[in-house]
Order: sequence, then C-alpha cells, then structure tokens
Amino acid sequence: MPTLVLIRHGQSAWNLENRFTGWWDVNLTEKGEAEAKAAGELLIEKGHDFDLCFTSFQTRAIKTLNIALEAMGRLWLPVEKDWRLNERHYGGLTGLDKAETAAKHGDEQVKIWRRSFDVPPPLPEADSPWDLSADRRYAGIDIPQTESLKDTIDRVLPYWESRIAPELKAGKRVLISAHGNSLRALVKHLSGIPDDEITGLEIPTGQPIVYELADDLTPTDRYYLSKR
Amino acid sequence: MPTLVLIRHGQSAWNLENRFTGWWDVNLTEKGEAEAKAAGELLIEKGHDFDLCFTSFQTRAIKTLNIALEAMGRLWLPVEKDWRLNERHYGGLTGLDKAETAAKHGDEQVKIWRRSFDVPPPLPEADSPWDLSADRRYAGIDIPQTESLKDTIDRVLPYWESRIAPELKAGKRVLISAHGNSLRALVKHLSGIPDDEITGLEIPTGQPIVYELADDLTPTDRYYLSKR
Repeated sequence: MPTLVLIRHGQSAWNLENRFTGWWDVNLTEKGEAEAKAAGELLIEKGHDFDLCFTSFQTRAIKTLNIALEAMGRLWLPVEKDWRLNERHYGGLTGLDKAETAAKHGDEQVKIWRRSFDVPPPLPEADSPWDLSADRRYAGIDIPQTESLKDTIDRVLPYWESRIAPELKAGKRVLISAHGNSLRALVKHLSGIPDDEITGLEIPTGQPIVYELADDLTPTDRYYLSKR
Repeated sequence: MPTLVLIRHGQSAWNLENRFTGWWDVNLTEKGEAEAKAAGELLIEKGHDFDLCFTSFQTRAIKTLNIALEAMGRLWLPVEKDWRLNERHYGGLTGLDKAETAAKHGDEQVKIWRRSFDVPPPLPEADSPWDLSADRRYAGIDIPQTESLKDTIDRVLPYWESRIAPELKAGKRVLISAHGNSLRALVKHLSGIPDDEITGLEIPTGQPIVYELADDLTPTDRYYLSKR
C-alpha cells in the first residue's frame, strides 16, 4: 500500500514576523529546527519509514527535511529537489508584514489576495529588493513573478504526476517537505477539496500529514501525526 | 574547464576517540560541524561554486556536505548519495581504539593493516556489535565485510567513471564530500600516486582540495584551499 507523508517546514524567521515570504529564501528559526527534529522523532516513533524524499529549492523546506531525516537516522535516503514544490510566489507582497500590507493596499484587498483561489497579488515593483532574477538556482527556469493559489497548483500538479505519483505507484514510501501552498495543492488534489474551501485549509508547521493510498493513489486515510 | 573539489568530513566522535570507524555511522562532533561550516565559507570566499554534489551513505559526510552547502547558500544543489563513496571498511577492527587494537593484535600487525595497500583487516567476529547486515541502507547491496585500501579503490573508481567523470566532462562543477580512504582513491587515480605512497597520504578533515582539470580530466592543478 503506497504511503505518502507531507511536512510543512518548521517556523521561519518571516513566519515569526508575519511577513509575506513566498519565494524569498528565509531560514528556519530555532523553534522551526526543533519542530523539524520533533517531526522526525515522531515519524520513527510511529513506525514510519521512507524510500524517497522530495523537497523544494528553498532552504527552510530542505533544512526541515534534513533535520527530520537525521532524527530518523535516514540522512542517506535519496532526495529530489525541485522549484515546482516552492511556496506560492506572493509577487509585490513579498517582504511586507501585515501592517505594511494593510497600509499600502487596505485590509479588504489583502483579504482577497489571501483568500481568493485565482487572484494573484500585484507584480513586484521594478526596484524590489526581493527580486530573484539573478538567483542562480532559477537560471534557465521561467519563474513566476506572482501567483494565485491556482497558479501554484498549476505547477505543482504536473510535477506530482511526472515525478512523485509514479514512485508511489511503484510501491515507494514517499516523504515530501514543502510549503503551506504547495502542500495545499497536493491535499486539494488527493482529497478532492473544492476551490473555495482549499484557501481556508490551514496546514500547521512541522506536523506530518499521513496519506494512506490505494494502488491508484486514491486516499483510504488521511491524518495528522501528533504526540497529542 | 572542469573543476572538482573534494572535502573530507569534519571531525567525528570516533576520530576524536581514535577508534577505527570505517562503515560505522558515527556523527560529527561540534568541532566537525564547525569545520564543515568553515569549509563552505572558505569556498564562497574564494569564489568557488558548484552544479552537482556527491557524497556517501554515511551521516558524517552527508552532514558535512549539508552544512557546507548551507554556508554557501547552496542547499538547493542536487546531491547524489552512494555507498561506493563510503569510508574503507575496517572489518574486525571497527570500534576498537588504538590501545585495544594493539592489545589484541600487536603494534606491528596494526601498522601493516594501516599502511599496507592490499592487506585487509580480519573479518568481523560473529557476534560483532558493529554488524551492518540489518541496516536498511545497504539492503540489496553486496557490502564488503572488510577492505584493504585496494578494495576500497576497486569500488570507488567504477562509481567515479560511471557517475562523476561524465558530469565533469559535460562541464559541471562538482563537489564531493567523502572520507579519508574514498578520497585517497580519487587522489591516487587523478594524480597518479603509486600504491606504496598513497597509504601515507594524509587528507585533513574539512579542508577543501581543489582540482583544476583539463577536458580529459587530467589535473592541471591541485591545491588545498586554506585561510592560512
């Protein structure tokens, strides 16, 4: 029976400051590192093991995976990294905290961007300090400038279909360490959650989500792994 | 021009205790972690960058790589892990410290095992606490029970030829994080060091060795990267 476990990265510096992060490569806080370690320990304690791991191009997700794997004694597992598992790109909102965003755009507009399925935030400004066009990791990739949740789903799912689903169908046990919105994309797809509900689904940091799947990858069970 | 950088993992708990480690999966000490971080910082400072990384199946080499990559802002680089980059397998000497080995086998015999090119240590004892046959990471692999340096070279070089050399020839910049003896295998091969000299070549921990290579991978230069 194929098993899939999803982990959202532990707390990052900008989670803590309540700033839109998106593709900006913010590191984990100490609390975030502790969450990752606890996730690995919990997975081992509950008898989970893996054959293959996937993560994004972003430090906070990669480190969460590395720390969890170390806690499991599984640093040697193969890991595939891909930009298509990155967080939703928040465009011109990147780097702004709650107060700055509200002052600049108004509470109502911010709520629309946060909660709508297919309305992307504005494009980054020309002189944005959060510009990624010179970042080597995205060289040769047609990276987005801003994304709605729908846009994020539209690049996560082809990766899922081409790289992850075939491994699960071949019987591999898969661990994915990623981000709030790239994981929403997977949960929406697997659990068939409607467009207007998925934007409200909160995925907690560092808490493994276990999917037990039929051979055709239809979920037979989904639950959070928790000490509580 | 292809560039290759080799790093021997930072200090491990058993380096410190002077015990034969080989394939036993000992972790880095705090000093070892600091060495790995310093190596990454030095690589960035000296203008080195990479496209692809290789490491062994052993925690101390993988962590050295992860820590160095994080210091370089390069955690997102692809990493291939393979058992053929593991340390030399010390067989029945695994776990013994200097005094225990001398008491058990005599100083002269130990010197032969340490310094000869093709004499492997004795096989592990039947009740060895360092038995790896139940370790999942080596499932399906015909792992050695003990190795001379020659045996180590004989499994490192086919991996070099099949996986690493083609990437260098394709122009990729490659970083390898591995072990004293798997790196000796590569240095012997690249620099044409004779059998009776390679066993005496000490490769310091955490200090990057830079190879500049011609297109056919003949070295044009080899040097240690060092702050000093």
